[in-house]
Amino acid sequence: MSQIVIDLILTNAIVLTMDEEFHLYENGAVAIHGPNIFAVGSADKITKNLQAKETIDCEGKVLMPGLINAHTHHAMTLMRGIADDLRLDVWLMGYLMPVEREFVTPEFVYLGTSLACIESIRSGVTTFADMYYFEEEVAKAAADAGMRAICSETILKFPTPDAQSYEEALNYTRGFIERWKGHPLIIPAVAPHAPYTCTDAILQEATALALEFDVPLHTHIAETASEVENSNSEHGMPVVPYAKKLNLLNAKVLAAHCVHIDESEMHILQEYNVGILHNPTSNLKLASGIAPISKMLEIGINVAIGTDGPSSNNDLDMFEEIRLAALLAKGSTGDPTTVPAKTALAMGTSIGAKAIHMGDITGSIETNKRADLILIDINPLHNTPRFLRDPDGIYGDIVYASKSTDVTDVMVNGVWLMRDRNLLTLNEAELLAQVDDYTQRIDAFLIEREKSILSKLVAIGGAMQQESFEVQTKVKITDSQTIIDALEHQDIEILATRHYHEYDTYFQFEDPVQGLLRYREDAFIEKGQVINVRYRLTLIGQASERHFPSGVLLSRSRYLAEAKHSLRFYREYFNPSRETYIEKDRLRWRVLFQGTEFYINIDRVEQPDLGTFLEVKSRTWGRGDADNKAKLANKLIEFLGASTELVITQDYIELVRSTS
Amino acid sequence: MSQIVIDLILTNAIVLTMDEEFHLYENGAVAIHGPNIFAVGSADKITKNLQAKETIDCEGKVLMPGLINAHTHHAMTLMRGIADDLRLDVWLMGYLMPVEREFVTPEFVYLGTSLACIESIRSGVTTFADMYYFEEEVAKAAADAGMRAICSETILKFPTPDAQSYEEALNYTRGFIERWKGHPLIIPAVAPHAPYTCTDAILQEATALALEFDVPLHTHIAETASEVENSNSEHGMPVVPYAKKLNLLNAKVLAAHCVHIDESEMHILQEYNVGILHNPTSNLKLASGIAPISKMLEIGINVAIGTDGPSSNNDLDMFEEIRLAALLAKGSTGDPTTVPAKTALAMGTSIGAKAIHMGDITGSIETNKRADLILIDINPLHNTPRFLRDPDGIYGDIVYASKSTDVTDVMVNGVWLMRDRNLLTLNEAELLAQVDDYTQRIDAFLIEREKSILSKLVAIGGAMQQESFEVQTKVKITDSQTIIDALEHQDIEILATRHYHEYDTYFQFEDPVQGLLRYREDAFIEKGQVINVRYRLTLIGQASERHFPSGVLLSRSRYLAEAKHSLRFYREYFNPSRETYIEKDRLRWRVLFQGTEFYINIDRVEQPDLGTFLEVKSRTWGRGDADNKAKLANKLIEFLGASTELVITQDYIELVRSTS
Repeated sequence: MSQIVIDLILTNAIVLTMDEEFHLYENGAVAIHGPNIFAVGSADKITKNLQAKETIDCEGKVLMPGLINAHTHHAMTLMRGIADDLRLDVWLMGYLMPVEREFVTPEFVYLGTSLACIESIRSGVTTFADMYYFEEEVAKAAADAGMRAICSETILKFPTPDAQSYEEALNYTRGFIERWKGHPLIIPAVAPHAPYTCTDAILQEATALALEFDVPLHTHIAETASEVENSNSEHGMPVVPYAKKLNLLNAKVLAAHCVHIDESEMHILQEYNVGILHNPTSNLKLASGIAPISKMLEIGINVAIGTDGPSSNNDLDMFEEIRLAALLAKGSTGDPTTVPAKTALAMGTSIGAKAIHMGDITGSIETNKRADLILIDINPLHNTPRFLRDPDGIYGDIVYASKSTDVTDVMVNGVWLMRDRNLLTLNEAELLAQVDDYTQRIDAFLIEREKSILSKLVAIGGAMQQESFEVQTKVKITDSQTIIDALEHQDIEILATRHYHEYDTYFQFEDPVQGLLRYREDAFIEKGQVINVRYRLTLIGQASERHFPSGVLLSRSRYLAEAKHSLRFYREYFNPSRETYIEKDRLRWRVLFQGTEFYINIDRVEQPDLGTFLEVKSRTWGRGDADNKAKLANKLIEFLGASTELVITQDYIELVRSTS
Repeated sequence: MSQIVIDLILTNAIVLTMDEEFHLYENGAVAIHGPNIFAVGSADKITKNLQAKETIDCEGKVLMPGLINAHTHHAMTLMRGIADDLRLDVWLMGYLMPVEREFVTPEFVYLGTSLACIESIRSGVTTFADMYYFEEEVAKAAADAGMRAICSETILKFPTPDAQSYEEALNYTRGFIERWKGHPLIIPAVAPHAPYTCTDAILQEATALALEFDVPLHTHIAETASEVENSNSEHGMPVVPYAKKLNLLNAKVLAAHCVHIDESEMHILQEYNVGILHNPTSNLKLASGIAPISKMLEIGINVAIGTDGPSSNNDLDMFEEIRLAALLAKGSTGDPTTVPAKTALAMGTSIGAKAIHMGDITGSIETNKRADLILIDINPLHNTPRFLRDPDGIYGDIVYASKSTDVTDVMVNGVWLMRDRNLLTLNEAELLAQVDDYTQRIDAFLIEREKSILSKLVAIGGAMQQESFEVQTKVKITDSQTIIDALEHQDIEILATRHYHEYDTYFQFEDPVQGLLRYREDAFIEKGQVINVRYRLTLIGQASERHFPSGVLLSRSRYLAEAKHSLRFYREYFNPSRETYIEKDRLRWRVLFQGTEFYINIDRVEQPDLGTFLEVKSRTWGRGDADNKAKLANKLIEFLGASTELVITQDYIELVRSTS
C-alpha cells in the first residue's frame, strides 16, 4: 500500500499507547520513521501494510511511551546520600549549600547530569524537567546522552554558584535560551526558584523572559506548610493567588510540589493550565506532607510525577515514584479506587507530558509524535503470574510490581539509547571514574569540616572570630543591693546599664578540643518588660587558661555568630553528646574604674538554682595587660564590698557540671 | 589460636551486624560453622585468628542479616494482580474468595509458596511469617527452599479451603504443630484470622493451643477503622483490650497491621511483648490508613515489616517495604528525623526478629545466632556515589537507594540459597511451567465468570433463581382513592396489605444480554413510620416478552439475592455502563379475585416524577395459565375503575429511559 519504506517496525509487543482512549494492542506494533512515530496498531496490520528497513521482534515485551521525570535536579546526583534523615533546613543549609558553594562548577553539573542520565535511561525515563545552575551544561549533557529535557536555569535572590546577582542569572538565562531554542531535544526554560526565595521583581522579570521567548517557567510552589503561612502573613494570601497577582501564571508554568494548596487554588491552577509536578518520595522524606493529587486530577489539572533531586529521594526511579503516587493517594484519601494504576501510569507519561507542556510531542504513542519509547520485560518472576481477564490489568502489573530494572530498551526521538540493557550513548565506566574523583573530594571536604565544630559553624554562615582575650573574676554574694549601692560611688563612672534575662544552652562534644557551643537568648528588659530578644551562638574554645594568685582567669578567644536558626536546628546540625541549660537574670554595668573599662555583672542563676554572683570582666590584649587588669578587677570587687576570699575561678557551666 | 577449623569465612565485606549497638565493620568478616555464626569482626582479626575450610572474598559488598518479611500470605503469589484498585470488600469477596474456593488445594499452596520463596530469596529475605491455609504445605515448601519460616494455620468462623469448621481447623493445626515443632527451619503457629472473623471460643481455644505448645499466635489486629468501630459497638471496647480480655495476649502474639490503635492500646501491646507487623504498601493500597509506627517504636514495641500477601501489594519486595516504612513515618508525623534509615533497616532485621519472637536465633550477625545473611552490591549506578563521611550513611544508602535486585547472595542456617544471583535450592523454570498452568485455569475461570453478571452474582454468595414467570399489566391513574375504595368491594378478598417506599437503582450493561441488575431498598411503613428496611438485588434477565392484545406482558424469570453489601460495593463489583435511579411510594395488596391470587400495586413514582400507576401482577407457570391470568388481570383493572385503554406495557425503568 504505502510507497515509502519506513525506518523501523517494532512488532510482537504489548503496545500501551497511553493515548486519550488508552488504546492497547495485546499483539501490537509501532512503525517509526526518522524521529517520529509513523503508525501504531495491531502487529498484523502494521506489518502487512508497511515496508520497513528493519523490523525488530519485541518478544512479547511491553512497548510504551518513555517515562517523564517532571521535576529533578539531575546534577545533584553527585550529592546522593550526602546526609539523610535530617530536617530540610539542616540538610539544605548544613550540608547541601556548603557543598554546592565549594563544588558546583560547569564540570560538576555536566558530570552529575550525565550520571543521572545513565540512571534515567536504565530505568526507562526518556524526558526530564531539570532545574539547577549552569543549565547550559545540563542541556549539553542531556543532548549528548540523547535524552529529551526541559532545562530550567534557577534564579534566586541570593548569590548562586553561577550568578552573583539575579540580574546576572537573568542575563545568563537569556543567552542560554537564545542558544538552545529550537533544539530537537532540549527546551530551555527559566526557573525563578520559588516565590519565597525570589523578590517580586525577579518573579516578574522571569515571567517576562518566559513570555518573550515562549519557554516554560519552572518553579516550586507551596512545598511546605510554613511557606504558605509566611505567604499569608507577608502578602495576605496563599502562594497561588500571590503568584497569580504577579502574573506568573501567564507563562507556561511547571509548578513543583503544590503540597499545601486548597481547592480554590487548584481552580486557579486549572484555569491557567499550570502543570503540577508531584514528588511523593521527596515530600515524605522531608516530611513536607502529601499533595492532594486526587482532588487535583478530579478538577482536571495535569499532574506529572517527579523524583526531585536524588539527594532528597535518593534515586531517580520513576517506577517507584509512580507506584508511590498511586498508593499514597489511596492511603491519604481512604479511597482505594482513587488514582488507579492506569491513571498513575498516565501521570508518568501522557498526563505528565501535558503537565510539562510537551503533550504535543511526547508522552504517548501516536502518529506524528516523537518516537520516545521503552520496552519492559513484563514476565520476570516478581511479576508472575500475569492474568489476562482484565485488559487493564497490565497497568496494575506495571505500576504495582514492575521494577525499573525490568526496562530493557529505550528510544528517544527515534534513536536507541539502550538496547538489551546496553547503553549506546554514554560511557558508564569512564563517567564513574570521574564521579569517584568528585566523591572523594566532597567526602574529604565534609570529613574535614565535620572534624571541627568551628568549620561547621563557619559553613552555615560566617561566625565572627573574636580574637580578644578577657580577664574575669567572680564571687558569690548574698546581698546584691550593697553592690548596687556601692556602684553609686563617685570613684566609679557608669557608662551604660543593662538588664537582661539570659537563657543559655551549652552543647558539649565527645572531643573536648571542639570546645563548647553556647546558644544564648538575651531578653532585654526595661521597666520589667521584655523589649527585645537577641539570639547568639558562641563557640567557646578550650581554654588555654591561666590562673593568677588572685583567682582571675585568662580565658581563650571565642567565635561569635548571630543565631539565625532555632535551637532545634543547631541541635540537629551539631549533634552534641551532652547539653546543659542555664538560665539567669543579669544586671550589667559598663564602668570606668581607675581609668580602665570593666563590665560588672550581678547574676542571679535561677536554673539550676546556684545563687547570686558578682562578676567583673575586662577585655585584654596581652599577658602584661591581663596581669594588671586582673589585679585591678580584684581591687574593684573589694571596693564594691565583696570578699575576694570567695573568688570562683569556674565558669557557670563548669559550676553546673561539678554540682550535677 | 583456635584449634578447630571452621566451615567458612566471608571476608572483605562491609559488615552491618544490626546488633544492639549497630556494630559495623567497614572491612569486616564473618566466620560460620555449621548453621551458626562463629565470630564477626574486622577482616584482619577474623582471618588472622581463625582457620576455615573455605574463605570467600565478598569484594566489598555489604554483608548483613537477611531480611525478615514478618507478615505474608505466600501462596497468594499465585493470585498476584488478579484485581487491583478495588475496595477491600469487592476485592476480597468479589475476586479473592471465589478464586480461593475454586482453586486452593495443597498443591496450589505448595506451588504458590515455592514461587514466593524464589522471589523472597532473590530479594534478600531469609525469614518469613506466613498465614494461610494448608500450612503443612507452606512448611514443606519453605523447608524445601531452605528458608526460615513461621507457618501459621488460619482459623476462621467460616468454612475455609482446608476446614469445614473451626474445630476441624484447630485439629489440623494441632497435628501440624506436633509434626513440625523442633524443625531447624520451621516454626509452626496458630492463626486465628482476626477478632472480628473469629468467635470468642475460637480465639480462646487458639490461644490455649498456642500456650500448650509454646508456639506463636499470628493474627490481624485493627487493620481498618470500621473494624475498631464494630469492636466498640459490639464489645464496648477497641480491638486490643478485647483481645486482652480474651487472654489472647498471653500467647507469643504477632499482630499484623495495628493501623487503628491508640496510645493506651500500644502500652498494652508493649506490656504483653506483642510484636507488631507493619505492612505499609498493603495499608496504603487498600486505603486502610497509616499505622503510627513512630509512636509504637517510641513506646518500645518491636515493630516488624511485612509485605502482606502479594495480591494486595503486589510483590514481596522488602526493600520497597522498608523504604516506605521510613518515608511514610516522616510524611505522616511531619518529622523528617523520625524512623531514620538505621531504625527502618533494624525493623526489617533485628527488631523484626524480636517482633516475631525469633530474636534469639536470627535478625542480627552475632556469635551463636544462625547464619541467616545476605550480600548486597552497594555500588550499582543507582547508588553512586557513596560517601564515607557519616559511618551511618550506609544505612541510608541501603534503605533509600538499594534495590532488591542488588542482592547477590543469600544464606539461611549456614546454607547458601543463592550464589551470584543463581538459585541453588529451587528450579525456577520447572515451577514457572506449573504456575503457567494455574494462571491459565484461574484466568479462564474468571473470564468465564466475568462474561456473565449472573455468575458474578452467584460468586459473591448464592443468588436464588426464581424460575417462575409473571403476568403484569399497568395503567396510569389520576385518582388512587377510587381504586382504594373499589378494593373494599366484596368480590375482592384482601389477603395482605403493605405500604412501602422503594428506592431502586438499576445497573445496565454494555451487553443487553446480561440483563438488568436492580438494587432495591424497601422501606416498610406503618402509620407513617419506617419500621424496617430490606435490601435486595434482582437480576432481571432480558425479557423473552410476549405481548398480548390486552397489553399484558409475560416477563422472564429473575434471580433474587439478599443484598448484604452496599450499593457502592455492587457498583464497583459489577461496574455497570449506566445507572438509573427510580424512587416510588407503593401501596400493595395481595388479593384473591375470582379464585386467582393477584398483587395490586398503587405506585406513585416520585423520582423521576412520572405520576401514579395501578399495577396488577400474578405469578404463572406456563403459557396457558399466563393467557388466562392476563385476561383476568385486565378484568380486575376495569373492576377497580381504571381504563385498560391506557395500558402500559413498559416497565418503570423503560418508561424512565424512554422519557430521559
